[in-house]
Amino acid sequence: MPQKVRIALDAMGGDFGASVVVPGAAISLGRHPETEFLLFGDRALIDAQLASQPSLRAVSRVFHTDVAVSMHEKPSQALRRGRKTSSMWLAIDAVKRGEADVAVSAGNTGALMAMARFGLRMLPGIDRPGLAAVWPTMRGDSVVLDLGATIGGDAHHLKALAVMGSAMASALFDLKRPTVGLLNIGVEEMKGGEEIRAAAELLREANLPQLEFIGFVEGDGIGKGAADVIVTEGFSGNIALKAAEGTARQFTEYLRSAMNRSWRSRIGYLFAKDAFRALRDKVDPNKSNGAVFLGLNGIVVKSHGGTSAEGFAYAVDVGYEMVRYDLLTKINQMLNRDAGVLGPVPAAQEAVS
Amino acid sequence: MPQKVRIALDAMGGDFGASVVVPGAAISLGRHPETEFLLFGDRALIDAQLASQPSLRAVSRVFHTDVAVSMHEKPSQALRRGRKTSSMWLAIDAVKRGEADVAVSAGNTGALMAMARFGLRMLPGIDRPGLAAVWPTMRGDSVVLDLGATIGGDAHHLKALAVMGSAMASALFDLKRPTVGLLNIGVEEMKGGEEIRAAAELLREANLPQLEFIGFVEGDGIGKGAADVIVTEGFSGNIALKAAEGTARQFTEYLRSAMNRSWRSRIGYLFAKDAFRALRDKVDPNKSNGAVFLGLNGIVVKSHGGTSAEGFAYAVDVGYEMVRYDLLTKINQMLNRDAGVLGPVPAAQEAVS
Repeated sequence: MPQKVRIALDAMGGDFGASVVVPGAAISLGRHPETEFLLFGDRALIDAQLASQPSLRAVSRVFHTDVAVSMHEKPSQALRRGRKTSSMWLAIDAVKRGEADVAVSAGNTGALMAMARFGLRMLPGIDRPGLAAVWPTMRGDSVVLDLGATIGGDAHHLKALAVMGSAMASALFDLKRPTVGLLNIGVEEMKGGEEIRAAAELLREANLPQLEFIGFVEGDGIGKGAADVIVTEGFSGNIALKAAEGTARQFTEYLRSAMNRSWRSRIGYLFAKDAFRALRDKVDPNKSNGAVFLGLNGIVVKSHGGTSAEGFAYAVDVGYEMVRYDLLTKINQMLNRDAGVLGPVPAAQEAVS
Repeated sequence: MPQKVRIALDAMGGDFGASVVVPGAAISLGRHPETEFLLFGDRALIDAQLASQPSLRAVSRVFHTDVAVSMHEKPSQALRRGRKTSSMWLAIDAVKRGEADVAVSAGNTGALMAMARFGLRMLPGIDRPGLAAVWPTMRGDSVVLDLGATIGGDAHHLKALAVMGSAMASALFDLKRPTVGLLNIGVEEMKGGEEIRAAAELLREANLPQLEFIGFVEGDGIGKGAADVIVTEGFSGNIALKAAEGTARQFTEYLRSAMNRSWRSRIGYLFAKDAFRALRDKVDPNKSNGAVFLGLNGIVVKSHGGTSAEGFAYAVDVGYEMVRYDLLTKINQMLNRDAGVLGPVPAAQEAVS
């Protein structure tokens, strides 16, 4: 791997800005030394952080801007105010201009999507982007999408998500033909809304060589690893992700208080410390940080806004991997194989955003 | 409490029928001796189970039928084949005829809803039923609905769910004015679909004396106990519930394997056994079994189809509590207070199902 991976960072994004972004990038650099960074934001704040990260500073260039998108700005407002000037926009623009391979931001999701869509444009045949992430399951990892890029969507949209999610799963998990399930409230054919049943029909009929459609998967099927790729529209995908995160947090909390309840349990904890460390490692929410916008002419990774430097580092890792595994090329190949996997031209025309 | 609670059981419902329903009822009877049972189903199978449950047998009457709704029948098919004859129908009908206070079934959810709706009819002002359950949170318990009775729904439907869920929370948790949150993919005002934003508007404007609307709650807010009542349409509610269940199962599995990984961790486990028992008790999925159909002229409780006798007993407990806390009267009072809390007459007319 001779080529370096060039990562553009929105250094002002997230609840903590440069104080999390810069140390996070440094952690990720430790894991992937063949990385270069372009940092966009307030130079004084960034330089202050870089001062204590000499190895990161050596591979980083800083681009100053005063404008930052706030966490609660409406997408339209962020576009109006921050287009061409904000740290978020400039990071995305670096990808567009080919100066970076991927942009990573912990900023406002809606604004990030609006800017990415506006700046990078959609791939041909794709009308709306999806947000995808790797979900740890009992069978390994799965790709789950859409986690909240857009709400609702017809059968064509769900099929496009299935194709893009499969490209991501093939690239990341090295699978020839990943299994794909549609998230639903039951596995029987008559379950779910009309668009889901129509999407199932589309996927079954298409019988695509690049993915194996296995039918409907219920909410608890995600954690079971029922399919390599789980597809749903953005509202329910976001609800599923956050409900699972909430439950994981609850469980961790209960476990902590259980182990503190008596001297016997505290001794037990000491004996089993390694086991608890392994468990914590396994369920560490930081490790699931970093979701990828799919469907754009470029790769943009969204980190949780409230994450720590460790968490942000995982989002940077995701960006790195997407470039290394050449995700964008793979998605394009999938979309173009068989003369347009997404079907009739009218659907493709919707893509003009 | 002089009056006994009369519980009608669909003894053929669920994956295991009488072999789970009857011992489950016996466990619940042990907790609430002031209960009587009406058991509907195959007399030979029921009697065989009752033979080893003398105290249950003493307070039970068995009504024979050969017809049972299968777990995978379509609702329309179940209605056609099982109306007036199936064990599920007869249990619901006992509630309609005033011979039982509540019906409990582990059968096919769609069929149960169709039969309950057909048999009991909707309450005035309610156009579609909701399925509600108690969700254990870090702050105590919350009522979450709709867990999958119907998919989608307009602002009026979401408001009706909020009112009914509040009645349930008031009754169960003894609250004067439970807090209510609408499940959404963000807490900002512009987030979510149109119907959710309109429902928020409706609830804010109405400023009902029986509930305190607190705005939007994200998926991880459920487990945090962000509100006493969490309202969403049935698709996302079902996905949230099952995603949370899946995560809990994953966590339990990881914990088990972590504690088995070395002799040190196994010793630790022995020391902390009581702590693990307390934890298991706290996250026992059986305890969350039993969801209530709201919006009907009668109470119907749905148990998981694949549950054990212990799990089914919790669903019977839920039925018992709904009767003891007089849920139906409370919902009716809420709906009628202030001359029709659900607003304009046109909306109420939709109720004719």
